[in-house]
Amino acid sequence: MPKLNILKIGGHVINDPAKLHLFLKDFANLSGDKILVHGGGKKASQVLTSMGIVPKMIGGRRVTDEKTLEVVTMVYAGIINTNIVAKLQSLNCKAIGLTGADLNSILAHKRVVKDIDYGFAGDIDMVNSEAIGTLLQMKACPVFCAVTHDKKGQLLNTNADTIAAELASSLAKSYDVELRFCFEKSGVLLDVEDEHSLISQLSYHAFQKYQRQGIIYEGMIPKIENAFWALRKGVHKVYIAGVESIRSGYVTGTQLIQNHHDQ
Amino acid sequence: MPKLNILKIGGHVINDPAKLHLFLKDFANLSGDKILVHGGGKKASQVLTSMGIVPKMIGGRRVTDEKTLEVVTMVYAGIINTNIVAKLQSLNCKAIGLTGADLNSILAHKRVVKDIDYGFAGDIDMVNSEAIGTLLQMKACPVFCAVTHDKKGQLLNTNADTIAAELASSLAKSYDVELRFCFEKSGVLLDVEDEHSLISQLSYHAFQKYQRQGIIYEGMIPKIENAFWALRKGVHKVYIAGVESIRSGYVTGTQLIQNHHDQ
Repeated sequence: MPKLNILKIGGHVINDPAKLHLFLKDFANLSGDKILVHGGGKKASQVLTSMGIVPKMIGGRRVTDEKTLEVVTMVYAGIINTNIVAKLQSLNCKAIGLTGADLNSILAHKRVVKDIDYGFAGDIDMVNSEAIGTLLQMKACPVFCAVTHDKKGQLLNTNADTIAAELASSLAKSYDVELRFCFEKSGVLLDVEDEHSLISQLSYHAFQKYQRQGIIYEGMIPKIENAFWALRKGVHKVYIAGVESIRSGYVTGTQLIQNHHDQ
Repeated sequence: MPKLNILKIGGHVINDPAKLHLFLKDFANLSGDKILVHGGGKKASQVLTSMGIVPKMIGGRRVTDEKTLEVVTMVYAGIINTNIVAKLQSLNCKAIGLTGADLNSILAHKRVVKDIDYGFAGDIDMVNSEAIGTLLQMKACPVFCAVTHDKKGQLLNTNADTIAAELASSLAKSYDVELRFCFEKSGVLLDVEDEHSLISQLSYHAFQKYQRQGIIYEGMIPKIENAFWALRKGVHKVYIAGVESIRSGYVTGTQLIQNHHDQ
């Protein structure tokens, strides 16, 4: 099977022009098929605040009312995605910016209200791996922002980590997928203050143990759960790593691995 | 050669949800290959004004400073384009939203300063008809907003009429292109107040005569010049028409024709 790199980047690198430029240079230099997925929540919150709207989060998840959806779409698809694509083009990477509505590439539904109404938040139903595969065959590089749609004309705000994991699991049927969640640390750390305490390989058992010990906590838990989900869904290699991990000579971050008895 | 419809719509229909819905239904029903190009200047001016920025126009052309470019990109690519694509998907049209940076589809340069500095305004150098052709072969429907790039990482605000004409002339080498500029009237009128005074066919000679007589004036002049340019560049049929002109049973608008001695 052909190799496919899927990388997810977040606000840490997006909001820092120098870091973003360096990352995009490294990304453009990656050979072979590749997909970039980006968030932008921090920038969206800044724009909301500048417009006098208080960003509403519950348990780290954004509550997306109509106005917030408009701002999120403006920021993710309008500012961040277009500028990343233009920068990648300047680095001779044949990028194409996408929301899930483009080519019906990611179909979602508005999250069903249980205890909390998250508004226009999308939960993914289907990835159109055929359409994405055709773009890859064109030697194009899809750049996804965190917006999907319901095929009824409604755009939906969708978690970028989840988009990356769903893309990876869907494309794992035809590609040897390496999925990398890039964030502000060099990987999962035993001590969050010490970059030298990197866990180079993490099994699900160890992840559970570290949670009980309070070593892995808060926002890292859903991020890692999401990454293990992709691994169970057949993604060949899954990493949680720093943005510089794709540059040769740098540590590759934390690789998530199956439990021994699962193998 | 295969047929290709290229339609351009402007603020008149974009800013009216009911009209836009009706147009997109008609557009989705058009059989065969098709491309949509949209403006959005009115909405951009509204957003600028709501942010306390006075939109600056010289001779009907926007002066695009850095902040204006950000807003234009947010509005055109972020709000209008994504929503049109989502709506077309709901109508089973396999739409894909594009700026000129996507797939390096439209390459431009920052307008050279002569008397007036238009800022980040783009003049088009090249249309990548190969990449656009590949999308059409996928049975995808490209939806272009009025943003291009310079392949040096800079996005540029670019007139949507010009984008439509340049796309049409470039694709006319491989397609039998019908280009239609849709606007608020049913076509070019002898009396702007009387929809029954439609000029059904307009030659360049007649256009010059009507200008001298003051029948065609102001913003219509560059629009029609642009349309004649496309005709001279080999576009098979060029119309200036109402948005409803693609619905069966409606008048098709004003067709631009060669002067008799040109034929």
